[in-house]
Amino acid sequence: MILTLAGGVGAARFLEGLLQVVPPETISAVVNTGDDFVLHGLHISPDLDIVTCTLAGLIDVAQGWGITGDTAECMEWLGRLGGPTWFKLGDRDLALHIRRTALLREGATLSQVADQFRRALGVSIRILPMSDQPVPTHIITDAGEMHFEEYFVQRRAADAVRGVRFVGVEAAAPAPGVLEGIAGAEAILLAPSNPIVSIGPILALPGLRQALRETHAPIIAVSPIVGGAPIKGPAAPLMQAAGLEVSALGIARTYQDFLDVLVIDEVDASLAPAIEQLGVRAVVTDTIMRGPAEKAHLARVALAAGNAFAFATEGTERTE
Amino acid sequence: MILTLAGGVGAARFLEGLLQVVPPETISAVVNTGDDFVLHGLHISPDLDIVTCTLAGLIDVAQGWGITGDTAECMEWLGRLGGPTWFKLGDRDLALHIRRTALLREGATLSQVADQFRRALGVSIRILPMSDQPVPTHIITDAGEMHFEEYFVQRRAADAVRGVRFVGVEAAAPAPGVLEGIAGAEAILLAPSNPIVSIGPILALPGLRQALRETHAPIIAVSPIVGGAPIKGPAAPLMQAAGLEVSALGIARTYQDFLDVLVIDEVDASLAPAIEQLGVRAVVTDTIMRGPAEKAHLARVALAAGNAFAFATEGTERTE
Repeated sequence: MILTLAGGVGAARFLEGLLQVVPPETISAVVNTGDDFVLHGLHISPDLDIVTCTLAGLIDVAQGWGITGDTAECMEWLGRLGGPTWFKLGDRDLALHIRRTALLREGATLSQVADQFRRALGVSIRILPMSDQPVPTHIITDAGEMHFEEYFVQRRAADAVRGVRFVGVEAAAPAPGVLEGIAGAEAILLAPSNPIVSIGPILALPGLRQALRETHAPIIAVSPIVGGAPIKGPAAPLMQAAGLEVSALGIARTYQDFLDVLVIDEVDASLAPAIEQLGVRAVVTDTIMRGPAEKAHLARVALAAGNAFAFATEGTERTE
Repeated sequence: MILTLAGGVGAARFLEGLLQVVPPETISAVVNTGDDFVLHGLHISPDLDIVTCTLAGLIDVAQGWGITGDTAECMEWLGRLGGPTWFKLGDRDLALHIRRTALLREGATLSQVADQFRRALGVSIRILPMSDQPVPTHIITDAGEMHFEEYFVQRRAADAVRGVRFVGVEAAAPAPGVLEGIAGAEAILLAPSNPIVSIGPILALPGLRQALRETHAPIIAVSPIVGGAPIKGPAAPLMQAAGLEVSALGIARTYQDFLDVLVIDEVDASLAPAIEQLGVRAVVTDTIMRGPAEKAHLARVALAAGNAFAFATEGTERTE
């Protein structure tokens, strides 16, 4: 089994590549749910939906979220009725939130809902939410503490960031299959996702980081930072607030206690020696996923790096 | 003030007529909520929505419910995700249910939601749900007891009816303004709605029937039964199960303890003497609301009959 820790858009694209190079039944994705929130009384799971709908071939590729060809009739009328309209929800999209909310209220777990949805939409890889308990990511800003989606979407990341809080994470458990998946995987991949608000919430779960330190599987991350900037999203202010350099080296530092290999872009090749000084192997390649070929290439490089690491360290104790 | 007890389609059309002949600010409608139910975790209020959207000029006139030009993207996807699809909900339509559910969960009453919606959609008459508490109408059939919408929409009224139950009605209260409205009205109208499942739930509320018996306002009903059959809907088996003749006379019997005047159709003129023997005045006119002119005519006839009754009985004790 190949286990991937995943955020939203970057992870979904990376998983599309992985699907081209290994059989789908060998892939599991553990998806961030820190972005989950309730709006209009509906439970919205942005990253789960982006991953599921991307792999189902349903995503609006241009914007990276939402369903291709979706309409916004309901949203317009929610606005007429005085509802909040800052978070756009398409009519098809809304079906996922309505159905998820109904199933959760009937007693299903988020894991069960995620599994039911990916099967209904024809996704053959296993999709696990990071936890069945809510662990909302709050951003602490100069304008106060707020949910990540409020910071990012409603206020367009305009507030100065002081820190991040994963509310209730101490009491949350990794979803069924997550720790077992880490312990039993042949390789663990960290998708090129935001280290603070996509991978960060997963790593903050009790026992998660320890399980990564203890697994025998090689752990390979793909840097979401290329040439000192994220491919997408608000990683820069969030990394800076965490005292991290916004670079592939900063990524290596974030994960250095458990990471074996970091795949970095060619433009960052000069950072390789500093990364290796942290005890993390650096593998340099083209990491920009322009299309299917580049996605498959990146997945192949990451898996090969993991295999090479496992071969080189076979029979030896882990040194990190 | 003119207070109208209302069900769905027939009542909405009757209120359209009333709006043509008296100022909107003098009209209140007390609307059946026995059909309300929860589907997809959403609070659906069929009669409130039919009345509100009809008066807002938004209704799909051909089918009598739903919003003109509405699409069904969300519904199709709810089906894909394994949700129930027997109750059609348009994308615009869904906005009402989503917003209503969210507001109720935030602590608003159904009365507050109904008032907010009718204002948001530009309806100038006052719309009151019959109660802020749920009083689901159950139909007792040979196939078991079930919610009215399950009997009527899901199972297409195919089961033999034995009776009707308004679940929890003993503990429910008329919504704020309902009893006061009955006591203070200049005229009380019963729209041509189903006597068992539209007007019936309203009348079953504690104190409601007593308030109708005690009010000084004339009470005028328009018969929904014309020529021995309802204009629309499942009145026949429901009236039969209640031991009532499916005729304007049956309607008069249902309401005879408080009714002053029954407006009946010309085709039922021969029933007038039997109706008057019950102590109910019968007024004969064309009651079929084909278009705006007929709607206004019916409202005028009903109001005039009430005025005539009030004038004739002025200064005398009520005799019923």
